[in-house]
Amino acid sequence: MKGTVLYGPRDVRFEELADPKIIKPTDALIKISATCVCGSDLWPFRGINKITRPTPMGHEYCGIVQETGSEVKTVKPGQFVIGSFFVSDNTCPHCRAGYQSSCQNRELIPGAQAPFLRVPLADGTLVATPENPSKEMIPSLLTLSDVMGTGWFAAVAADVKPGKTVVVVGDGAVGLLGILSAKQMGAGRIIAMSRHETRQKLAREFGATDIVAGRGDEGVARIKEMTKGIGADSVLEAVGTQESMTQAIRSTRPGGSIGFVGVPHGVELDGQQLFFSHVRLHGGPAPVRRFLPDLIDLVWKGKINPGKVFDLTLPLDQVAEGYRAMDERRAIKTLLMP
Amino acid sequence: MKGTVLYGPRDVRFEELADPKIIKPTDALIKISATCVCGSDLWPFRGINKITRPTPMGHEYCGIVQETGSEVKTVKPGQFVIGSFFVSDNTCPHCRAGYQSSCQNRELIPGAQAPFLRVPLADGTLVATPENPSKEMIPSLLTLSDVMGTGWFAAVAADVKPGKTVVVVGDGAVGLLGILSAKQMGAGRIIAMSRHETRQKLAREFGATDIVAGRGDEGVARIKEMTKGIGADSVLEAVGTQESMTQAIRSTRPGGSIGFVGVPHGVELDGQQLFFSHVRLHGGPAPVRRFLPDLIDLVWKGKINPGKVFDLTLPLDQVAEGYRAMDERRAIKTLLMP
Repeated sequence: MKGTVLYGPRDVRFEELADPKIIKPTDALIKISATCVCGSDLWPFRGINKITRPTPMGHEYCGIVQETGSEVKTVKPGQFVIGSFFVSDNTCPHCRAGYQSSCQNRELIPGAQAPFLRVPLADGTLVATPENPSKEMIPSLLTLSDVMGTGWFAAVAADVKPGKTVVVVGDGAVGLLGILSAKQMGAGRIIAMSRHETRQKLAREFGATDIVAGRGDEGVARIKEMTKGIGADSVLEAVGTQESMTQAIRSTRPGGSIGFVGVPHGVELDGQQLFFSHVRLHGGPAPVRRFLPDLIDLVWKGKINPGKVFDLTLPLDQVAEGYRAMDERRAIKTLLMP
Repeated sequence: MKGTVLYGPRDVRFEELADPKIIKPTDALIKISATCVCGSDLWPFRGINKITRPTPMGHEYCGIVQETGSEVKTVKPGQFVIGSFFVSDNTCPHCRAGYQSSCQNRELIPGAQAPFLRVPLADGTLVATPENPSKEMIPSLLTLSDVMGTGWFAAVAADVKPGKTVVVVGDGAVGLLGILSAKQMGAGRIIAMSRHETRQKLAREFGATDIVAGRGDEGVARIKEMTKGIGADSVLEAVGTQESMTQAIRSTRPGGSIGFVGVPHGVELDGQQLFFSHVRLHGGPAPVRRFLPDLIDLVWKGKINPGKVFDLTLPLDQVAEGYRAMDERRAIKTLLMP
């Protein structure tokens, strides 16, 4: 088969690779129905995360089970499945506590931007849909593999509750789906920090009640002004830079919570600032597996439509253009069809 | 009156000061029954926190109301009262959310190592005991002004729950009272990190089930070993150094919580380490006022005896020796009697 490989900064190739196959009895082999480019794929694409050798790319996927290893029990060939970007056994103590992305046997899914994918620990990683979905539903189901699950975790970690005031820092797919999540959880007011018109529009569609374009001191001042000087109850941080993290901390009320899901790059938190801010901080790689059953249900019943974050659809072999469009912010998120 | 003034590193003097008096209609004047030296007083005593001029010391107090301003309604002359080290109005949004130590009108109590003290915002800061306490109960009531309330907040912030495994980093008065707090909250296992015999003994008396003397990598390895490789559910951090904070983060299970109450000195948290640790972090200056009514009740009914942390009692005029004894770790905490 042909799949996606990153050779170095801005050098994405779609090239011949070995066909994946069952290696361990706990593996499943999937025919990918749809995959996509993640905001986190841009870190190595931009050369900020160094790579040392040609690297198969992609960790978001859904599709039809082709074959399963002899020990796989919960999914079977022909089923449509979605899995987390982190493989998990779903039985270790961390999994049982709901932190499957810290599974004692975790592995990162490699090479999902391809027509076929081997998924290790299939029983602990994959969840099947009730039946095979319509073509229209596939983009929304695909988001559950990472960005929707991550936005949801941000809202859970930030302790979003009915009627509360929520700020979302970051207007990428995760931030936008954080807005959708906060809305689902009944937030009273959802303030999206965004300075891009198309993203502002989608933010409002997902449930944002207010938009703040300012950043840094200006952004914090605006949030404080909108909350009578108090700060927000919950802040979702979906970027991972020093600026966005500082913005999040300074926008939160004492006793309020920050859910941070943007992978931090060069972020250092000052202990004393954190101490006197009185905020709660929780985040990390989203334990998507925890949320998959409920989120599949919400998509299946048409209650959420997170697939709207895809504003560019390309055939898989044009994956390189998919990266470029996101890098240049011409697209929020690129859907790739094998 | 004579009171305690710090002139510079290790230069504590007990000298003539102006008698405090009612300045604002919301003030109360208190005759101090007992006061003490705080671990945090050692930061400027050791010259780590710089002071720029002679500074009246002490922020832990309890005593008899002598006089109240015209607007004070909740306490009256003759009552025995305890107050937080931070003055609060107890009506602003932060106070109503339970974060009185982030009160919009907060002030730090100055100069409580003295026979008399002016307490601003008396209605929002002071809580009276049911009646005047016995002499024996006064040390325990005094601890509620800071160290006991702070240990309690650490346990609340670390989400201590019945049956859970708790680690306490720091064997000063706050750490020891964090152990007592965790015990009260029903923790199943309480691991005290301590290498000092007298403190280990008190830790056990307060409810510690295990003692770990190791620090750094060795300490973390021991905690992991004791928890089957999982880590603790709740970790109380009561020191405030880079080493203690790192110890706390590395000892906590994914999804577990850290309550950090040691004022951070030079602590920088690496964003990516925090992200992948999956811990919850909450702390800050303890909102002692939130807990005062309940903690007074526990002391009053004899259910807790936090006054045991005082292992040195001195007349107030020997305050300088009280600092030295704590600085040299000859004493856990010095009680001062005017």
